[in-house]
Amino acid sequence: MNTHQNKGFLSFKTKVSALVESRMFQYFITFVIIVNAISIGLETYTFFKPYQNVFFILDCLFLAIFVIELSLKLFVQKLHFFKNNWNVFDFIIVVGSLVLYNTNFVSVLRIFRVLRVLRTITSVPSLRRIVNALFMAIPTISSVILLMTIIFYVYAVIGTMFFSYIAPEYFGNLQLSFITLFQTFTLESWASGIFRPIFAESGWSWLYFISFIVIATFIMINLIVGEIVNNAQKISQEIEDETGELKEDTKEIKELRAEIKELKALLTTYITQNEKKD
Amino acid sequence: MNTHQNKGFLSFKTKVSALVESRMFQYFITFVIIVNAISIGLETYTFFKPYQNVFFILDCLFLAIFVIELSLKLFVQKLHFFKNNWNVFDFIIVVGSLVLYNTNFVSVLRIFRVLRVLRTITSVPSLRRIVNALFMAIPTISSVILLMTIIFYVYAVIGTMFFSYIAPEYFGNLQLSFITLFQTFTLESWASGIFRPIFAESGWSWLYFISFIVIATFIMINLIVGEIVNNAQKISQEIEDETGELKEDTKEIKELRAEIKELKALLTTYITQNEKKD
Amino acid sequence: MNTHQNKGFLSFKTKVSALVESRMFQYFITFVIIVNAISIGLETYTFFKPYQNVFFILDCLFLAIFVIELSLKLFVQKLHFFKNNWNVFDFIIVVGSLVLYNTNFVSVLRIFRVLRVLRTITSVPSLRRIVNALFMAIPTISSVILLMTIIFYVYAVIGTMFFSYIAPEYFGNLQLSFITLFQTFTLESWASGIFRPIFAESGWSWLYFISFIVIATFIMINLIVGEIVNNAQKISQEIEDETGELKEDTKEIKELRAEIKELKALLTTYITQNEKKD
Amino acid sequence: MNTHQNKGFLSFKTKVSALVESRMFQYFITFVIIVNAISIGLETYTFFKPYQNVFFILDCLFLAIFVIELSLKLFVQKLHFFKNNWNVFDFIIVVGSLVLYNTNFVSVLRIFRVLRVLRTITSVPSLRRIVNALFMAIPTISSVILLMTIIFYVYAVIGTMFFSYIAPEYFGNLQLSFITLFQTFTLESWASGIFRPIFAESGWSWLYFISFIVIATFIMINLIVGEIVNNAQKISQEIEDETGELKEDTKEIKELRAEIKELKALLTTYITQNEKKD
Repeated sequence: MNTHQNKGFLSFKTKVSALVESRMFQYFITFVIIVNAISIGLETYTFFKPYQNVFFILDCLFLAIFVIELSLKLFVQKLHFFKNNWNVFDFIIVVGSLVLYNTNFVSVLRIFRVLRVLRTITSVPSLRRIVNALFMAIPTISSVILLMTIIFYVYAVIGTMFFSYIAPEYFGNLQLSFITLFQTFTLESWASGIFRPIFAESGWSWLYFISFIVIATFIMINLIVGEIVNNAQKISQEIEDETGELKEDTKEIKELRAEIKELKALLTTYITQNEKKD
Repeated sequence: MNTHQNKGFLSFKTKVSALVESRMFQYFITFVIIVNAISIGLETYTFFKPYQNVFFILDCLFLAIFVIELSLKLFVQKLHFFKNNWNVFDFIIVVGSLVLYNTNFVSVLRIFRVLRVLRTITSVPSLRRIVNALFMAIPTISSVILLMTIIFYVYAVIGTMFFSYIAPEYFGNLQLSFITLFQTFTLESWASGIFRPIFAESGWSWLYFISFIVIATFIMINLIVGEIVNNAQKISQEIEDETGELKEDTKEIKELRAEIKELKALLTTYITQNEKKD
Repeated sequence: MNTHQNKGFLSFKTKVSALVESRMFQYFITFVIIVNAISIGLETYTFFKPYQNVFFILDCLFLAIFVIELSLKLFVQKLHFFKNNWNVFDFIIVVGSLVLYNTNFVSVLRIFRVLRVLRTITSVPSLRRIVNALFMAIPTISSVILLMTIIFYVYAVIGTMFFSYIAPEYFGNLQLSFITLFQTFTLESWASGIFRPIFAESGWSWLYFISFIVIATFIMINLIVGEIVNNAQKISQEIEDETGELKEDTKEIKELRAEIKELKALLTTYITQNEKKD
Repeated sequence: MNTHQNKGFLSFKTKVSALVESRMFQYFITFVIIVNAISIGLETYTFFKPYQNVFFILDCLFLAIFVIELSLKLFVQKLHFFKNNWNVFDFIIVVGSLVLYNTNFVSVLRIFRVLRVLRTITSVPSLRRIVNALFMAIPTISSVILLMTIIFYVYAVIGTMFFSYIAPEYFGNLQLSFITLFQTFTLESWASGIFRPIFAESGWSWLYFISFIVIATFIMINLIVGEIVNNAQKISQEIEDETGELKEDTKEIKELRAEIKELKALLTTYITQNEKKD
């Protein structure tokens, strides 16, 4: 009977896994994610303030569906579930909003609810591929990011040292300096807003700002150029492999020649023998 | 006699098609389009206000010419006319302004009249080619656009949630948030105009803005890099095909070798026979 | 005796051409150009106002030197002189400032004097190469520029039509609209300065601005991508030619095979004959 | 005994060089550099004002460590030490802050202390590689920089000539004009801040600004495109070399054919002889 149970359980499990892998199920989840996204959008309008509790119920419903979906997946895939980063992402998003219910971290909960919209990426393969590609690009540029961080740090410290009294709202402390340098890096009113008022006070500040912009943008441009060339290199590698294969011909031809030499030797000896005979 | 009519009709039709396809006709239409464009430009100047009815008459004339042109083309090409997207574009532009005459949608009509300037693209092949190329680029980036839309949506909802009271003119509702995020994406006074006033109210807002800019620009850069590399890949593909063709040599040489082996065998057997004989 | 004169003249001419082509002469001219550039720079400082007549005399001197240089070159190269665009450029710059002396177009004259600084480009080969390359790039992008012009024109007309009363300083007339659109194209306070005030008046204006930015930047990006890919294509062409040369092998090998077939036939027939004999 | 001393000295030197080259030592120095960087960062906070003397002592300690490190390296590598640019850089940074102690150039000293943070680049190989690559990129673009300088100079002089009275804060003198042009080059409020106020005074100023932006950005874009294409060219060169090697096949095959011809000749002559005999 135990075995019977076991069998029943197995058949049940196979059913579940079949369900979870089924197109319909995935489409349904995608549909729920999209409806959830729309409802979250509508909720922002003051026009819908009165129907707030409706949205709350809807949200509970959506969350419930997601919890069921993930628990089913977990039940089927067991710990393999966590091998896939996308599953981990979904898990965090859903469990996060589950944990935060009835807590005081309302704003955090709301953010988690919005982040559920990102599950559309998980459910659309083409998007998943792009995001994977983007993440794959990070390690190659990690050391450039490190270099940038060092340069930002040096300029932030110098900026805080010398401009904290002239422009406290921009260089009041290290964090503010970092934000200001990021703004300068994006070239957004770096002069009209930040530089020119400081320039009026300290005459050499132009060196600080222009050197920072030149260095930062120069690194940025070289980073992009590098990325393009790296990819081009990968491509050219393929071509080189192609040509590499052709090398074997050379070997082939050499052997061919050797054989013909043999043939000639054989023939000549034979002929000379015959001539002797006559 | 009926046949005679028919023949007459056919000969007439051939005449028309000859006319429509003729260089002169196309040059004439291009000329009209350009004159139309100039007149629309001049019309904007208050200096020409008194001559408004002159411009009106001119415009009617231009429209009439375009209507005749398209009806001739339609008469010749029949439904094949609509197979070419450029024809459809011309058709909409012309019929649109025809339909809107003597309606209250004056501003819409005026826009349609200006859009007629775009017909220059239709009439200059090199421009048509470029625009086709641009449209061809869209499908390859469609999923990136979708990804961008999702990210914009998530940030718009979060922005509206948390900043709608701090900066109603920027994050008052979802549409405004979208426009504000687009402005932030173009880096136009994202800090001086939008971020810093909000930053004064909520201390963590820097995370919202900087993360958005980093993510959005990172995707954008990777999109461009991708586009370049894709094109490079197409090119390298051609080269690989070239090298691919060279592969057949390897086959050829192998067969060659086989034949020479045969030849050697044949010869050796013959020689040994002869030797036996002696 | 006439011939004697002629001979004298010829020898003189050869002397002049030797002088003009000599390193020393070119270095001297480059030196003069640089000194001229510096003096023009110093002249801008109010500190040097009192020495104005010194600068005037210097300028006359520089101009004299340039006039002599060019007339010598003209004397040597005759009309071939104008075959080189750089010579034409130098000629215009120098003659321009010569013609404008003692006229009322003082500001134009002053510009011409400053433009003489650009002669450094003429006298430094590496710079000349870069500028040539830049000019070479223009024809390839000319049709994109034409497309841009059309789009600018359409948006300028629409902008003038609808915003000339809301924002006369930006869209007061067609020229202003063009400048405003150029500013929008550079993304410089397109929102904070131009769009948002208009947006407050007409609710659909976001469509006008965002569509323009998206279209213009999209074309711009594709232009750059295209330029890169074009150059890549040129490079890959070379490679294809390389591989193309390898094709002849295939032919070679085929012929080789044919010959071996012959050889075999020859041998077999001979052997069979012999066998008959015995 | 003298030799004994000498031996002792040598053994000591080997010990030192072993120490200097050891992983532990390098890790320790890197650690000190990072701690130094953190302490410099913390020092900027007013919160730590009371502990200023602590930071001073720490700084002395760090400097002492760096001095010892470099003197050890110098002792080992002698003048070879200065062959490596990174060593030179470290040397300047450390000696610079050593020299400036107890001088009135306090602000310069403080900058030197901050610049010590850049030693992290020296101590992390991957960063060193990137920075080397960046410096390697400079010579290839040096002539473009020269061209840019000339264009900046010409526009700066013209700007100072004509706008020094209209906008003294932007074009008051040549240096200011250079800074303003750099700001214009970064497109930062070039219109809203600089151009439009001047445009209100002098109607043709749009030509000055738009031409400058078009030329400068055009050169910039072509510089980047050029950098990408140069790298692509390098890659394609490799491929061409690959295909080049394949050329030898053609030679091989030709020789092969020659030999077979010989073989045939040999055979035919032999056969004809035999036939004569019979």
